[in-house]
Amino acid sequence: MKKIGKQSFKMANDVYIRDVYTIAGTKEGEGPLSSDIDYILSDSIWGEKTWEKCESKMQQYAVENLIKKNNLKKSDIDIMLAGDLLNQIVSSSYAARSLEIPFIGLYGACSTMALSMGVGALLIDGGFASNVVCVTSSHFCCAERQYRTPLESGGQRHMSAQWTVTGSGAVWLSNKNGNDDCPKIRNVTFGKIIDLGVTDANNMGAAMAPAFADTVRQNIIDTNFDINYDLIVSGDLGTVGKQIANKLLKEDGIDIEKKYDDCGTIIFDIDKQDVHAGGSGCGCSAVVFGSFLYKKLKKKEINTLLFTATGALHSPTVSLQGESVPGIAHSIGISN
Amino acid sequence: MKKIGKQSFKMANDVYIRDVYTIAGTKEGEGPLSSDIDYILSDSIWGEKTWEKCESKMQQYAVENLIKKNNLKKSDIDIMLAGDLLNQIVSSSYAARSLEIPFIGLYGACSTMALSMGVGALLIDGGFASNVVCVTSSHFCCAERQYRTPLESGGQRHMSAQWTVTGSGAVWLSNKNGNDDCPKIRNVTFGKIIDLGVTDANNMGAAMAPAFADTVRQNIIDTNFDINYDLIVSGDLGTVGKQIANKLLKEDGIDIEKKYDDCGTIIFDIDKQDVHAGGSGCGCSAVVFGSFLYKKLKKKEINTLLFTATGALHSPTVSLQGESVPGIAHSIGISN
Repeated sequence: MKKIGKQSFKMANDVYIRDVYTIAGTKEGEGPLSSDIDYILSDSIWGEKTWEKCESKMQQYAVENLIKKNNLKKSDIDIMLAGDLLNQIVSSSYAARSLEIPFIGLYGACSTMALSMGVGALLIDGGFASNVVCVTSSHFCCAERQYRTPLESGGQRHMSAQWTVTGSGAVWLSNKNGNDDCPKIRNVTFGKIIDLGVTDANNMGAAMAPAFADTVRQNIIDTNFDINYDLIVSGDLGTVGKQIANKLLKEDGIDIEKKYDDCGTIIFDIDKQDVHAGGSGCGCSAVVFGSFLYKKLKKKEINTLLFTATGALHSPTVSLQGESVPGIAHSIGISN
Repeated sequence: MKKIGKQSFKMANDVYIRDVYTIAGTKEGEGPLSSDIDYILSDSIWGEKTWEKCESKMQQYAVENLIKKNNLKKSDIDIMLAGDLLNQIVSSSYAARSLEIPFIGLYGACSTMALSMGVGALLIDGGFASNVVCVTSSHFCCAERQYRTPLESGGQRHMSAQWTVTGSGAVWLSNKNGNDDCPKIRNVTFGKIIDLGVTDANNMGAAMAPAFADTVRQNIIDTNFDINYDLIVSGDLGTVGKQIANKLLKEDGIDIEKKYDDCGTIIFDIDKQDVHAGGSGCGCSAVVFGSFLYKKLKKKEINTLLFTATGALHSPTVSLQGESVPGIAHSIGISN
C-alpha cells in the first residue's frame, strides 16, 4: 500500500519532473520573474478574437513548446491532465482539442496545478503512464468578467482582492530521468475541503488559508517528518492569506514562517504593481512553479520543496445565494 | 507497464465495483427505471432554497447513503472523485465539504461518471487506495438556466435537444470483493477530444457521437478484442447521437448495433415523457449505471459491459464566440 497516513501517498517508484514551459501576460512579464518566464505576451489578446481564445492558446502553446523543446512527439505523452478557472474548463479542452492526447479534465480552482501533478505522479508511479503533461492556465480579463465584474465597468478593487495571473505553465512528468538529473516527486497529499465560513468573495486568501494549513499539517504528519523542506510554498494565498496561514500553523505548533513563501506574492512586485493582495489563478502557481521554483531546484538553491497550491471552490451563482467559500489545497513533496 | 495500446489501461489487480446508490428527480422517477432508483425526489427543490443546493444535497445524500448502507465510515473512503455540470463544479465541492474525504474534482461534462470510475480504478489498481467513491450529479433546472435559457422564459425546446437528468449516482470501488461477488473493472480507455465542427448547442448528441465512436474503437483495438462485450452503453447520446454512433462505427467495420444502448434513451420513455432526444447530464449515466446496468451485471443478465460516458466540453461563453462543441468519451470495461 502506497498510501501513508490519512491523505498522503509516497512514491514507490521514481517520478521525475523532467521539464517545464511557462508563458505569461504583459503585467506578469514586468514582475520579478520576467527573465525566467519562457514566453511573455505583448498584449492581452495575442492575435485572437477573445480573451478566452487567448487563454486556450496559451495552454496549447505551453504544451506544444514543452513537447518541442524536448524533442518529443505528441504521441510520447500518455495523458494530459489539465484544468483552468473558466466555466466548463474550456481553456483546457479547447487546448487539448488539437493536441490529440488522451485528456483528463480536472477542476480544483487555483489548486489545479498541484492537483494535476498529484494525479499525474500517481499515474506514473502506478505504472500506468511513462510521460504525462500537467497544464493549467488563467487570464485576468476572462476571470474578472466571469467571477467579478466586466473590466469595462471599471469597478474599484478591494484591498484584499488578488489579481488573476494571465499565464499558463506546463509540466512534464516522466518515469525516466533526464541527463541533467531532475527533481523527483516524493509524496502527494490530496486535501479535504475546509470551509470556515468566509463569504467575502473578495478575500480568497482568507477563505483558502485554513485549507492550506490543514493540508500542510497533514502532509507533515502523514509523511512522518520524512522530508525537512527547504521551502514551503502556497499558491496563492496572497498577503492576507499568507499571514493567516502562518498564524494557523503556529497555533498547531508548526512554525514554517522562515521557509514559507506564496506564489501570489512571488509573481508580482506587490508594492509597485498595484495588485493589492497579490496574484492568483490556476496560471499563478503554474507559472511560479515553472519559472521560479523548478529552476531553484535544478540550480540546487533548494533541494526540497513542498508545493501546496490552494483553490477556492465557490461559484458566483452560489455566492449570490449566500454560500460561503470552501477552500482546498493539495501538496506535492519534491526533492532533488 | 499497465498501459495497453495507445489510450487504454488493463487492471493488473482486482478493482471491484462494490456497490452503488442512486437518487433522481420526479420525472426520472416516472420513467422506466422507477423501481430501481434508490431514492426519488417528490419535487425539484427537496426543501432547499435553490436548485443548486438541491443538486449538491443529492450528491451528498448519495455518498452518505452508499457509505451507510455498507456499514462503512467516511474515513474508510480514501478518496472521493466527483464532478458535475455546474460552473466550478459546485455541486461536488459543496457535497464534499461535509464529507471530510480527500477530494479530487474532475470535469468531463456528461462523461464525468466514466472519468471518475476510470481514475478511481487506476488509483485502486496502483495500490494508492483501498476504497474510493465516484459520484456525479446534474439537475434539469440548474442546467437549463446555466446552459440554455432560464425555465421562466418558457423557451421552445429543439427536437434534437436532450433533457438534463435530475439525479446523482455514487459508486464504491474497492480492492476487496464483497460476499455477493461483485463485478470488476477490467480496463479503462481515456478519450481524446474529437471535434467535427458541430456548432449547434441544441444537438449535443451529434457533437459527442464521434468521440464515442473513437473511444469505443480505441478500446476494442487497445484491448485486442479481449472482452466480447454483452452490452455497450453510451452515456448520453440520445436518439440522434445513437444513430450517428452506430453509423460511424459501421463505417469502420465495427457493428455494435445489436448490443448497443444509450443511457439517455434508457432513463426516459422517449415516446411518452416529452424529452425529445432523451436524457443527458452527469447524473444520467450515473443513475443509469447505478440503477440499471450494475443490477444487470449483479443478476448476471449481462456478464460484460463497456460503459462509455460521453461529454460535450463547450461553454455557453465560447459557443457565443462561434466555437464548435468538442466531444470526449471515456470507456470502462467491466466483467463479472
